[in-house]
Amino acid sequence: MKAELVMVGSELLLGETIDTNATFLAGELAALGIDVHFKTTVGDNWFRLMHVLSQALVRADVVITGGGLGPTMDDLTREAAAGVFGRDLALDEQAMADLERFFEQRGRAMTRNNRKQAYLPEDAKAIPNDWGTAPGFILEDNGRCLISLPGVPREMRGMFSATVAPYLAKRRGEGSVILSRSLHFSGIGESAMEDAVKDILLTQTNPTVAPYASLGTVKLRITAKAASRQLCENLIEPMEEQLIARLKPHFFGRDGISLEEALGKELRQQNATVALAESCTGGLIGHRLTNVSGSSDYFLAGFVTYSNEAKEAILNVPQALLLEHGAVSEPVAKAMAEGARLVGSTTWGLAVTGIAGPNGGSDAKPVGTVHLAAAGPDGTYHERHLFRGAREQIKDRTATAALDLLRRCLSH
Amino acid sequence: MKAELVMVGSELLLGETIDTNATFLAGELAALGIDVHFKTTVGDNWFRLMHVLSQALVRADVVITGGGLGPTMDDLTREAAAGVFGRDLALDEQAMADLERFFEQRGRAMTRNNRKQAYLPEDAKAIPNDWGTAPGFILEDNGRCLISLPGVPREMRGMFSATVAPYLAKRRGEGSVILSRSLHFSGIGESAMEDAVKDILLTQTNPTVAPYASLGTVKLRITAKAASRQLCENLIEPMEEQLIARLKPHFFGRDGISLEEALGKELRQQNATVALAESCTGGLIGHRLTNVSGSSDYFLAGFVTYSNEAKEAILNVPQALLLEHGAVSEPVAKAMAEGARLVGSTTWGLAVTGIAGPNGGSDAKPVGTVHLAAAGPDGTYHERHLFRGAREQIKDRTATAALDLLRRCLSH
Repeated sequence: MKAELVMVGSELLLGETIDTNATFLAGELAALGIDVHFKTTVGDNWFRLMHVLSQALVRADVVITGGGLGPTMDDLTREAAAGVFGRDLALDEQAMADLERFFEQRGRAMTRNNRKQAYLPEDAKAIPNDWGTAPGFILEDNGRCLISLPGVPREMRGMFSATVAPYLAKRRGEGSVILSRSLHFSGIGESAMEDAVKDILLTQTNPTVAPYASLGTVKLRITAKAASRQLCENLIEPMEEQLIARLKPHFFGRDGISLEEALGKELRQQNATVALAESCTGGLIGHRLTNVSGSSDYFLAGFVTYSNEAKEAILNVPQALLLEHGAVSEPVAKAMAEGARLVGSTTWGLAVTGIAGPNGGSDAKPVGTVHLAAAGPDGTYHERHLFRGAREQIKDRTATAALDLLRRCLSH
Repeated sequence: MKAELVMVGSELLLGETIDTNATFLAGELAALGIDVHFKTTVGDNWFRLMHVLSQALVRADVVITGGGLGPTMDDLTREAAAGVFGRDLALDEQAMADLERFFEQRGRAMTRNNRKQAYLPEDAKAIPNDWGTAPGFILEDNGRCLISLPGVPREMRGMFSATVAPYLAKRRGEGSVILSRSLHFSGIGESAMEDAVKDILLTQTNPTVAPYASLGTVKLRITAKAASRQLCENLIEPMEEQLIARLKPHFFGRDGISLEEALGKELRQQNATVALAESCTGGLIGHRLTNVSGSSDYFLAGFVTYSNEAKEAILNVPQALLLEHGAVSEPVAKAMAEGARLVGSTTWGLAVTGIAGPNGGSDAKPVGTVHLAAAGPDGTYHERHLFRGAREQIKDRTATAALDLLRRCLSH
């Protein structure tokens, strides 16, 4: 089953917006075992949109459009879809009722423009939008189908999960279930991870195993295809065990869990708390930790000691250490971690000090040199890294490495 | 002049990667005054790539491809481009010499696979790659041109600036220069900004004015077209003055400057320093401030006082205030700002306290309630906001609003 994504909207061709909708749709389709062969982006222009849709319906079985369902003159997806299928637009009574209720609930007046959002191509199946004003729709003809969703990410995602995914799973056929499981690893690069599982990657059939990398963490996605969900699970489990065994110290979780979520779970499980001492990362580690709802259970305080004076005054790092070894050094990193732990009255203190660049490097301590330290009940652990990249990339990698250090300390 | 972007690579259709290259190219072309009418993404498949390129060369004057120039079996752009133009691949001596030198300089062995990167379509003009191994190329025929660049962002950007942009400017024609200027504003929403300049937006001809929004800041891009750069400037200046005058308190800079860069410049200019007291933002404000190289000149320390105990112990916020008003309140925000200023020994203390959600809200203080305070030599300023969105969006908007508050305090 071949799919084409058609992303509609002139703003996507002006270089001002990054298309996250297309990535979302492609990921969802991959998880459903549907191959995306083409992704086309086109502006709010009637002729070009008709052209692109016609072409897509020839070369793909399933066409999914995003955008162009708004209330303005530039929103043309309904009209173009109807045109391509040779139909008129017709008022969908349920869609109109939903639209009226949406505005009523918010105490807002519905404009004349909004009314057009309740008109769908004749005989299209409406996709309800519980998150906004525009219903989506599904058009079927002659073995092809066109699925149109709004461009607002929250609406598109809700509608895809609620209506489109079940529809596509059914269309793809009974007797054929696709199931994916992702395994996440930290503290290892993509090349090294591939090396560790090279033989598995080369001999894979069903399930398949695909490696992916983000800044600092890597992932293996296992995808199985079988007649039922249970049979898929039966295929996935032994592969999962095998992969985790090969990469044991690096494994931190499954299916989209972030490193900070996994760390948070472990801290909570151990009834442990942590205080941070950040220098070059500037607050990024605290920001990431607090992206997790409920992190106030284990994260109590952070100290961004950006100057040497701040390291002395706030974390009690001895001036002698700073003078003798410099701020970016093992002794200072350890003193910062121990200081944070004491001042914060926490189980753990986690510290980073380094050179994010582009300035500040030297032969002895080039840009990207970072020292991490984790101070706990049993002692203080230290690691030194040398990261490459621009300032923000070095900060990102440092934060990830620090979170990973603490994760590994907790699992001792 | 119409352009189509063809992004090559199966990873772009699996939902694992967000396509930032396409956004970069579209932005650069917009700045050159070239309209991008289509953007097509296709996988590493010979037949589909040939199909997409053929079609692109019919419907566009300029086709730019990204990706598929690597050394592996899946890299097919050279072959497909040659095929579509009806040519063979031929060894480019200069490209081979560059390739050999690249590996020599890095002390690495060149593999057999890498050799294919020195083969280009016959009579193509090579685009030198000073950032990696694969040269790009330009193919011209019958009024059309195909420009192929590597998919590695750093390489693509360098090669575009150095070679492709001048080539396209020349192709677009002498006597026609396009110049853009962006104006950035904070503390105002996109709708309100559009209202303030509505009449200008409706009557624009040359230059054009286009509004854009990011989380918390908005921008107006002025684009002028004239026979020379100076004539473009002559058109842009009066428009710039007019727009800034309409939105004076909100204007913070031009052409891509971030709010934190603009704030940093102002702090440095006034010889002022700042300490942060962050609660719900968790370190995000410090992270953003320290993304700016040289920020250690004005940012000395940050306190992430995530618990009430931390607010008391570290910033000396009186327990009575916390008990009477709660952590998310004007008195506590002000006490945090004054505490940070004192403990950090800085000119300014900037504090935020709020409810990022999704939990923790109440009728009196719903999710998204945030209090900001800036304590300076002349007193303490306070603002209350109510932000909508998910946890990360509320944190983002809060951080931006806090940076903006300090910016406005500095300009009194």
